Amino acid sequence: MEKKKIVIVGAGLCGTLLAIRMAQRGYEVSLHEKRSDMRKEDMAAGRSINLALSARGLMALDRVGLKEKVLEYCIPMHGRMIHTVTGETYLSPYSGRAEDYINSVSRGGLNCLLLDEAEKMENVKIHFNSACKTVDLKNAKATFKQANEWDVMDTGDILIGTDGAGSVVRRGMMSRTTELLFNYSQDFLRHGYKELSILPAENGGYRIEKNALHIWPRGSFMIIALPNMDGSFTLTMFHPYGGDAGFNTLNKEEVLTSFFEEYYPDLVPHIPHYIEEYMNNPVGTLGTIKCYPWQAFGKSLIMGDAAHAVVPFYGQGMNASFEDVRVFDDMLEEYGDSDWNLLFEKYQDARAENANAIADLAIDNFHEMQNKVNDPDFQKKRKLEMKLEQEHPEYYSKYSLVTFKPELSYAEAMKKGRNQDDKLLDIVSKVQDISELDSSKVLDQILN
Amino acid sequence: MEKKKIVIVGAGLCGTLLAIRMAQRGYEVSLHEKRSDMRKEDMAAGRSINLALSARGLMALDRVGLKEKVLEYCIPMHGRMIHTVTGETYLSPYSGRAEDYINSVSRGGLNCLLLDEAEKMENVKIHFNSACKTVDLKNAKATFKQANEWDVMDTGDILIGTDGAGSVVRRGMMSRTTELLFNYSQDFLRHGYKELSILPAENGGYRIEKNALHIWPRGSFMIIALPNMDGSFTLTMFHPYGGDAGFNTLNKEEVLTSFFEEYYPDLVPHIPHYIEEYMNNPVGTLGTIKCYPWQAFGKSLIMGDAAHAVVPFYGQGMNASFEDVRVFDDMLEEYGDSDWNLLFEKYQDARAENANAIADLAIDNFHEMQNKVNDPDFQKKRKLEMKLEQEHPEYYSKYSLVTFKPELSYAEAMKKGRNQDDKLLDIVSKVQDISELDSSKVLDQILN
Repeated sequence: MEKKKIVIVGAGLCGTLLAIRMAQRGYEVSLHEKRSDMRKEDMAAGRSINLALSARGLMALDRVGLKEKVLEYCIPMHGRMIHTVTGETYLSPYSGRAEDYINSVSRGGLNCLLLDEAEKMENVKIHFNSACKTVDLKNAKATFKQANEWDVMDTGDILIGTDGAGSVVRRGMMSRTTELLFNYSQDFLRHGYKELSILPAENGGYRIEKNALHIWPRGSFMIIALPNMDGSFTLTMFHPYGGDAGFNTLNKEEVLTSFFEEYYPDLVPHIPHYIEEYMNNPVGTLGTIKCYPWQAFGKSLIMGDAAHAVVPFYGQGMNASFEDVRVFDDMLEEYGDSDWNLLFEKYQDARAENANAIADLAIDNFHEMQNKVNDPDFQKKRKLEMKLEQEHPEYYSKYSLVTFKPELSYAEAMKKGRNQDDKLLDIVSKVQDISELDSSKVLDQILN
Repeated sequence: MEKKKIVIVGAGLCGTLLAIRMAQRGYEVSLHEKRSDMRKEDMAAGRSINLALSARGLMALDRVGLKEKVLEYCIPMHGRMIHTVTGETYLSPYSGRAEDYINSVSRGGLNCLLLDEAEKMENVKIHFNSACKTVDLKNAKATFKQANEWDVMDTGDILIGTDGAGSVVRRGMMSRTTELLFNYSQDFLRHGYKELSILPAENGGYRIEKNALHIWPRGSFMIIALPNMDGSFTLTMFHPYGGDAGFNTLNKEEVLTSFFEEYYPDLVPHIPHYIEEYMNNPVGTLGTIKCYPWQAFGKSLIMGDAAHAVVPFYGQGMNASFEDVRVFDDMLEEYGDSDWNLLFEKYQDARAENANAIADLAIDNFHEMQNKVNDPDFQKKRKLEMKLEQEHPEYYSKYSLVTFKPELSYAEAMKKGRNQDDKLLDIVSKVQDISELDSSKVLDQILN
């Protein structure tokens, strides 16, 4: 019997992982990527964007046998290193369990690693410079503009769009909006982001603590930093567009330097070249995309950011997309591929509420990171959570449920975590110091 | 000084009313409509779709001096006539005040009347068969495909899109999504609608009560009927797509007739030709569209369904669009037109929360109409509200606040009305019969 063929649109992190897993299952995979092969580009090492990889992403990488290999390129981050405006720093651990940490990994580096693995498989064919132009959802068919040609057509038994927030496959579903009753929302924050960097120290080491995610929280704006393998850090400013701290206002050198000296004084000595970077680098938008359904006619499906783009504040965007692949693989194991429509329905019904949950959690964390981390009650709550996790390792805080417990869905983690948070905030608001509290009694209160 | 020019895309109800008002203010108005001139089409009188016109719409019509003229073509509806499955009927009045009623009006007839008025004004030029293809939002410019030509261009000082739920002008804003931070959502109900009709009686009269909006509520589906001037009624079935009552299931004559005989027995004798109508008429979708911003670059604006399409269950779609024109006119009076950007910002900031409110209220009413009208507590609440409105004319129920009090915004009406409803439901749940209640005491409880 001829092998079934899967056309995948988009060879980013999600599409490439999907290609590997589907090829391992024996499918013929045709993987299209509109950009050129990033492995052949001259990428400045260490200057690339980095992402947080955690348990859900690792579980999916383990499914294809790549977890250990990827971990070699990861830098553990054990907590948030908070930088106050007066220059003090303190570490707020992610968990009370030593084995729970998140990892900083280069987006480009990870994508290259996955492409290398995909390319090794003889039943994967990767087409670079192949930009999807139109989709025929009913026939799992798409046309691609390639380097010197137009309208190369590719048809599969099914077509899967992993082509990101600006998905062309999703746009095809939008155009059949009344036929599919296609619900869709895009929601932009009134904040944008801009990337800067801290270069390695002169001895090649790290200028600030390596094993942490750094935050300079300033109420309605912030900077964060994640470490890179080469000693550098990628900084991301999350600022509003307008107002005193707005990108539109911070548009002259004098204004910018006096702003940085006022709000980020301990950072300035580490970033001598920041004015040039600031002026040259673009401001990116921060948006949430939700939609439903994710499948059309039992022939076409969207996955990853194409189906559920989230803001980056929970560090779960890549992890959620990798989890999509793992869950799709679970469903394929359970239901087989004799009825793609059934499989797609089961997949989207299992997954959509979880995508909505992580989208909402990420918006919550936006407010938490830039503002609440400075709040005394919030700090007490985090300390109490650390104590609970240390003394009762079976306890998971909301952050830990979302980040370190992949066997629990995002929706369940959100529900359980929010419920715990309400009770914890109530408990800590009544004490001066959490040392007054008995952790076993607190646990009883929270879990009942 | 040369008159300023306004290009309006879409000569439906909202666009034509806007054209009239802007012309009255002295602007040069260029009004484009993709369809042909509906006044020249051979429309079967009385078979057209009808809509509910109420105080907000009338207030806007009054602004242009057309209220009395339009009322001549209206049929007052004093309440909901509920038809139970066993064939009983009872009237649930819309208000305890005799002067509060809504009006059934022909969409086509009203649109023709407005076109006639617009055409009389020498500073309005109407272009039929002129379909907007592209918009240049920054320059208030658009291209139109006309009958025998392509790409006719029209430019104004400003451009306003009143081109309905499928707005081309809004699509132009969507394509600048990151630049405008354009938030957008479309949300379809899993119900569709199909129109049927009750013909006039043989003597030309009405087969069922003329001055009511009829409802056959059946829990998860329903039929409604609005009267036409010629003695006919337009029926609208609101049914799910799938399931036993679904349009996809009711697709054979036997299935359909046994369904109608079971669920709509008192209606069947009035609609001898319904099977043919059912089989011939399409199923329409029911969607809510929300977006923000509504303006771009101080040059282009969207209004009416283009900015805020709602489901029809509050009878407020047309009224909200007419109110847009009235509020825009108020703003123009207050702020003038020397700074269009300021005017547009003021308009959208005043209006967007109200558009969201009526969208949400309409979804609530969908559940109320098909289901709650049969609920004993709901019926007791409505009776109590009638009593309150009769004995204390200063009291307005939620429905009355939304429908009969145009000086209150939709957002305020929703907030106040929901608050009242919570208290009323609590009060009626504790009594067997509302005659036990003293209306003055109830009023005290509700308003405090």
